[in-house]
Amino acid sequence: MRNFTSVHDIGDLKSALAKAKQVKENPFADQELGKNKTLLMIFFNSSLRTRLSTQKAALNLGMNVIVLDINQGAWKLETEKGVIMDGDKPEHILEAIPVMGSYCDVIGVRSFAQFENKASDYNEVILNQFIQYSGKPVFSMEAATRHPLQSFADLITIEEYKKTEKPKVVLTWAPHPRALPQAVPNSFAEWMNAAGYEFVITHPKGYELDDEFVGKAVVEYDKEKAYKGADFIYAKNWAAYQDPNYGKILSTDRAWTVDTEKMALTNNAYFMHCLPVRRNMIVSDEVIDSPQSIVIPEAANRVVSAQVVLKEILLGL
Amino acid sequence: MRNFTSVHDIGDLKSALAKAKQVKENPFADQELGKNKTLLMIFFNSSLRTRLSTQKAALNLGMNVIVLDINQGAWKLETEKGVIMDGDKPEHILEAIPVMGSYCDVIGVRSFAQFENKASDYNEVILNQFIQYSGKPVFSMEAATRHPLQSFADLITIEEYKKTEKPKVVLTWAPHPRALPQAVPNSFAEWMNAAGYEFVITHPKGYELDDEFVGKAVVEYDKEKAYKGADFIYAKNWAAYQDPNYGKILSTDRAWTVDTEKMALTNNAYFMHCLPVRRNMIVSDEVIDSPQSIVIPEAANRVVSAQVVLKEILLGL
Amino acid sequence: MRNFTSVHDIGDLKSALAKAKQVKENPFADQELGKNKTLLMIFFNSSLRTRLSTQKAALNLGMNVIVLDINQGAWKLETEKGVIMDGDKPEHILEAIPVMGSYCDVIGVRSFAQFENKASDYNEVILNQFIQYSGKPVFSMEAATRHPLQSFADLITIEEYKKTEKPKVVLTWAPHPRALPQAVPNSFAEWMNAAGYEFVITHPKGYELDDEFVGKAVVEYDKEKAYKGADFIYAKNWAAYQDPNYGKILSTDRAWTVDTEKMALTNNAYFMHCLPVRRNMIVSDEVIDSPQSIVIPEAANRVVSAQVVLKEILLGL
Repeated sequence: MRNFTSVHDIGDLKSALAKAKQVKENPFADQELGKNKTLLMIFFNSSLRTRLSTQKAALNLGMNVIVLDINQGAWKLETEKGVIMDGDKPEHILEAIPVMGSYCDVIGVRSFAQFENKASDYNEVILNQFIQYSGKPVFSMEAATRHPLQSFADLITIEEYKKTEKPKVVLTWAPHPRALPQAVPNSFAEWMNAAGYEFVITHPKGYELDDEFVGKAVVEYDKEKAYKGADFIYAKNWAAYQDPNYGKILSTDRAWTVDTEKMALTNNAYFMHCLPVRRNMIVSDEVIDSPQSIVIPEAANRVVSAQVVLKEILLGL
Repeated sequence: MRNFTSVHDIGDLKSALAKAKQVKENPFADQELGKNKTLLMIFFNSSLRTRLSTQKAALNLGMNVIVLDINQGAWKLETEKGVIMDGDKPEHILEAIPVMGSYCDVIGVRSFAQFENKASDYNEVILNQFIQYSGKPVFSMEAATRHPLQSFADLITIEEYKKTEKPKVVLTWAPHPRALPQAVPNSFAEWMNAAGYEFVITHPKGYELDDEFVGKAVVEYDKEKAYKGADFIYAKNWAAYQDPNYGKILSTDRAWTVDTEKMALTNNAYFMHCLPVRRNMIVSDEVIDSPQSIVIPEAANRVVSAQVVLKEILLGL
Repeated sequence: MRNFTSVHDIGDLKSALAKAKQVKENPFADQELGKNKTLLMIFFNSSLRTRLSTQKAALNLGMNVIVLDINQGAWKLETEKGVIMDGDKPEHILEAIPVMGSYCDVIGVRSFAQFENKASDYNEVILNQFIQYSGKPVFSMEAATRHPLQSFADLITIEEYKKTEKPKVVLTWAPHPRALPQAVPNSFAEWMNAAGYEFVITHPKGYELDDEFVGKAVVEYDKEKAYKGADFIYAKNWAAYQDPNYGKILSTDRAWTVDTEKMALTNNAYFMHCLPVRRNMIVSDEVIDSPQSIVIPEAANRVVSAQVVLKEILLGL
């Protein structure tokens, strides 16, 4: 594997899941692979799970890790060509990225959608500049439109907990006080489609995701109907994608909060969320504290997905 | 050892001191013990000595180290149950802590008293939540009421410098422009009581510490009397503990500054302080620059105390 | 080598360059040397290249690395003796430095000129206090008056690209919107003088550097004359050094920007800059994007210079 930015980079999912199982059973088996290889983790946005789990995965593989937190206020990168750089941006991405590439073997980048320019967000300008200019393999630690390490961990978790070959998986929008990117639902949809599960997306009108990610999923506006018979309820908030509301909050309706009443409609479904999660907005205390909540093992699998991806990148060096 | 939050966790002090001696003589002898074990250091408050010395101790033991600085302003954790999380706190401690636990083998936590709620401070709410929810061994890198890695280093230092079996050790309050927690004096008192030294505490009226920590110490309001015959003078500022003045500054009287006049009353005592120290407030330049000042070897012993504690935790995994 | 603060510490340049070649050809050959040795990198100022390249060099040598970012606002060190520390500075450098020294084997320090007091800047007060009080070898990661790891990397790069034994190297001032220290040009001049190249410095009147650094260089105010026949053009902005203008911007004249017209006067010169560089202020897009620009290999050589210096320090322990 050269770069990892979406499900399309991981190859056959059965094989990827088999690799995940191996890594989980024997996390320290590949330390020779990472010896004298340096991972540079670059954060344009803050991070808890991704920061810790990716670092742990790299250490499991025997790699060295260097973490670079880019405070966007303090260190602005110019991205336009031809500009006279007499303002507040001291360095151009054309120099910064190849230099960073020259100090490491693998680069992880976290860079969220900024909701200022939909085309720029959905073209993944920052991530792609790293791929183009760094000279090194690049993987996404959550980019503007996808969060593939999360989705891969989600898939691993569903495979561990599922009771039927093709479970019914429901992605439900849920309310949140702030405008959040679509990276997690986009990416989750992409991986669920690739996994071939029975996959349903439910959300209020106006929250339709990009067709590219929705794919063959059933979009069901009647949430009760969506929940019926579900094996997994995957909750997430996102801001509107469709024009002219890109990046806007259209609803904070707590009827969409995942609660025991709606969970009662399911096939004793497991509850999943990528975290951090706002209790009693996204999900009620009762549901997240119930035995059906698997958010902690789901988060723990972030080490596994990151380690598979890093291992494949190391094998491709 | 499972957790380390106070002198009660270290077991027999003679044995602990023998282990400290071993660690100091041969700091790299136990690197197999830490191999593929990851220490997660979580800082809710800033730190110089604890940050560096604990990291060094873990590296000496062959561990991997991940450091997480939690900027309290940027990343607030909800701690109340049942709250509708529609405000400024994006994550609940009920998720954050087990997730952090899933990415490491041992957790160190620094979390100071906040002087907003005495009961919450003295119940060590944050430290105890890590113990309860992380699923991993937890040690204090200074908590609300104790700083046991400091106190253990203090004990090691006194043992190295003492000239009699049971030296006279005097903990003296000293002035400071800001309100400081009682963690260091509480903890020091607890360890001195356990060590069985002749132990005296001196401070202005109103600065009485919690009886639980004072224990069998002699409290002497007459500082000159307290200094008389001392083998070690341990200076520290703290804000008032007793109601209704909890967290308040009652005095900045520089008559309490440790100076050559008062040191002349002692048995040529050594001067100790946990650092950082405000010169000419806590202690005069003359005293801290004198050969009797052992603040630097005392700080250096922070690596030793941390390494003994980490080693015992690793042995208990 | 004990400390590394200038070209005077590196010894014979031929020998240093031979060591650089060895390190570059076989970066992992000396890992036993760094085993159980800890580098403490202390940043008083922000850093991208120095932070990453020095860390990479230390990891290549098998060292442990601890990074300490000193936010000048949050953690102020008192440096005056005899002060009553009742203000905003909680720790004196007399304690902080030996304590930091006790937790590591080698110390790197970054501390820029502050343009508040020329004598204090040019006496390298902070760097020298680390040398005096830490008890450990200290190297400069850019100090007030020199940036020797950069200059050494510059020398390595020139040696790799030069086509004649003694190339003509031209250091040219170029415009910039902010007042920058003289550390890079001072240090570059010092190393070029030591290398024995044909060395010319060109800048507008008023930008004369300290004679100590200019040495035997030719100072040529006519920039076109300076460029003529040059093999290397090394651009850099700096604020005025001479009194009464120390630290002031005297010109932002873009006639000094390195452009294709002036480059046409050279002997097909290579373009160099320490980065970060402001495009179309310091250098035109055409020049920095041309094949003659060697700023990326120059930056990559920062790992090499740091690794040679660290290796020599480790050999001297």
